Amino acid sequence: MRVGNLPGIRRLPTYLDILRRFQREGQTTTSSPALADATGLVVSVVRKDIEMTGASGKTGVGFSVDQLIADIEAFLGWNNPLAAFLAGAGHLGSALLGYAEFHHHGLDIVAAFDVDPNKIGIRIHEIEVLPLDKMVDLARRMHIGIGIITVPPHAAQQVADSMVEAGITRIWNFAAAILDVPAGVTVQREDLSAGLAELLVRSSRRLPARGNS
Amino acid sequence: MRVGNLPGIRRLPTYLDILRRFQREGQTTTSSPALADATGLVVSVVRKDIEMTGASGKTGVGFSVDQLIADIEAFLGWNNPLAAFLAGAGHLGSALLGYAEFHHHGLDIVAAFDVDPNKIGIRIHEIEVLPLDKMVDLARRMHIGIGIITVPPHAAQQVADSMVEAGITRIWNFAAAILDVPAGVTVQREDLSAGLAELLVRSSRRLPARGNS
Repeated sequence: MRVGNLPGIRRLPTYLDILRRFQREGQTTTSSPALADATGLVVSVVRKDIEMTGASGKTGVGFSVDQLIADIEAFLGWNNPLAAFLAGAGHLGSALLGYAEFHHHGLDIVAAFDVDPNKIGIRIHEIEVLPLDKMVDLARRMHIGIGIITVPPHAAQQVADSMVEAGITRIWNFAAAILDVPAGVTVQREDLSAGLAELLVRSSRRLPARGNS
Repeated sequence: MRVGNLPGIRRLPTYLDILRRFQREGQTTTSSPALADATGLVVSVVRKDIEMTGASGKTGVGFSVDQLIADIEAFLGWNNPLAAFLAGAGHLGSALLGYAEFHHHGLDIVAAFDVDPNKIGIRIHEIEVLPLDKMVDLARRMHIGIGIITVPPHAAQQVADSMVEAGITRIWNFAAAILDVPAGVTVQREDLSAGLAELLVRSSRRLPARGNS
């Protein structure tokens, strides 16, 4: 199974969105050209992305929509929701707490943490904000697998250290900071400026179409 | 000049962050191995990314930090800030309005728009929220180049249509919706779930290290 195709992995949630729309509209089968049409991608890219997940279609019939959703979800591990803690209940943290899509995407944010006494105790989109100094102990006891960092850059390393101390092995970092973590911990840095860079370069240099994805 | 390297383009803001830190720390020259060390990327990837921007170093000396910053910014077009409108002043929209990094990254969000009467007239991080039905006229008069969409998915297409009508040719779409736009308009879809997919697949399958970027 090919797994080195990171741009393809990043496109899988888009295919899921489209397949779920097909499902709602009562469609039972689909094809790579139909998915290419819906995403604006070229067919060969769609084929390669789907192949990566191990899903297989039938000649002349295409893919079962239900089965393709199940195959992509299994590839992503989204059939087993993972419990996550979020540190930093500011604007971006609140946006993530309210991002309904995550519930379909294997992520269950169970608590948020902050140092601001005005935020501690409130609920944001039903999720309680707790004092940051309770995070390590709670994460250990609840076997939390994912930590999301939405604190200011200067506080990010200390929060990451606490997450590592608590046994968290997957860190999703939205702070503009490069984190130092031990081997065995995976950090995904989410840099909003990366998308802006891509937009500006693509539009000014007329790069090959990637559609909306 | 190679321009098809989208993952590399997405990494450029990270190099800029690091180079600016070097600059603050008084460092005047740097090298690909030093940047590889700071990002956790392999040296060959850093070399390829820098090569793409057209920057060149000197044997035995490396890159001038100031010049490398200037070269990357010129490649990204970040030396000429672009005026942007943002539609949808909810949690995510507010987070983007407050995202200080954009000021260094060629993006100047000059106004926000919403349909909620409770939001219209307020200022979020110094940026005024105006009624959405004023957007087309204002964008035309102000020659706005970039539209940022942070409305709910069901409203995204209508907002995109208005942006296109107003002459906006670059749309940065944070809504979970695939937009239909005419040729000549570039849409960058920012799907928060894409980063989550990457994190989960990388951590479970031990993909080659990409560091924090």
